[in-house]
Amino acid sequence: MISKDWFIGFIEGEGNFNISLSKALMKKSKSYLFEFYPILQFRIFLREDDKEALEKIKNFVGVGKIYKKSYKYSRKKGVNSQDQYVYMITSIKNLLVLKELLISSNFHTKKKKDMEIFFKVLDLKIEKKHLTLDGYNEIMALVANLNSLNRENFRVKPVTE
Amino acid sequence: MISKDWFIGFIEGEGNFNISLSKALMKKSKSYLFEFYPILQFRIFLREDDKEALEKIKNFVGVGKIYKKSYKYSRKKGVNSQDQYVYMITSIKNLLVLKELLISSNFHTKKKKDMEIFFKVLDLKIEKKHLTLDGYNEIMALVANLNSLNRENFRVKPVTE
Repeated sequence: MISKDWFIGFIEGEGNFNISLSKALMKKSKSYLFEFYPILQFRIFLREDDKEALEKIKNFVGVGKIYKKSYKYSRKKGVNSQDQYVYMITSIKNLLVLKELLISSNFHTKKKKDMEIFFKVLDLKIEKKHLTLDGYNEIMALVANLNSLNRENFRVKPVTE
Repeated sequence: MISKDWFIGFIEGEGNFNISLSKALMKKSKSYLFEFYPILQFRIFLREDDKEALEKIKNFVGVGKIYKKSYKYSRKKGVNSQDQYVYMITSIKNLLVLKELLISSNFHTKKKKDMEIFFKVLDLKIEKKHLTLDGYNEIMALVANLNSLNRENFRVKPVTE
């Protein structure tokens, strides 16, 4: 069994509070007014031979799913990649379970900031603020400050009326 | 303050039980008979803005040093790298302090195997087994099984008399 402190320590290194900005999804909904739709994913990627650790984490948190990420095509191209497994929490209901577990915990690295931004965006989405101009701009500004974001690929300007 | 469980969780992600095989060092000593000299280094690399977490870790373990790893030259070449800090434990005396802390702890990933190999090699060095043919070959076999080793760069064959 893993402990809460072990889990915090582990995700400070390996946890990924990811907010992706989807262009595709919002096209499905005519009522969504903005360019990007924020999608929240908490993720932990581990190598195939550490799948058992992801199972322990999933049991500890009580929610989430484990998926296989195949590198078969990389290997075919001669890249020596081992398959990975990813533990993911994506639904609002389950992300609230994670928030309850983490929000008051002692973090010791800059991952704390990512975690706080992530759950702030979650709260804004729950309040449907991503459907308003102010809320959308607030979310875009928060996402721009995520540490784990690849800033090179991200230049979104605020929307004005 | 960090806890022991947090520390274990964190090093399962970020800790590096490194055994480097030096060619240079053994040239200094005429009494050393073999091609590679095993050097043990426990390391945690973090970005510059997480130096504080390394200070907490150093205080918790009670030994080790923190060094700056500059990427100034990478940046001059246009690579967008932030400087890093590395927490290191290298002396036998201090590695024994780390061993005492970790060897009976609950690990949950394959890092456990790296940790066990690392301290097995430490014990062999303390017993001066690296100076004998059997001990040297045992160390080389152990090092070949380190997960964190870049196997692509490592093809050492056992020595025969």
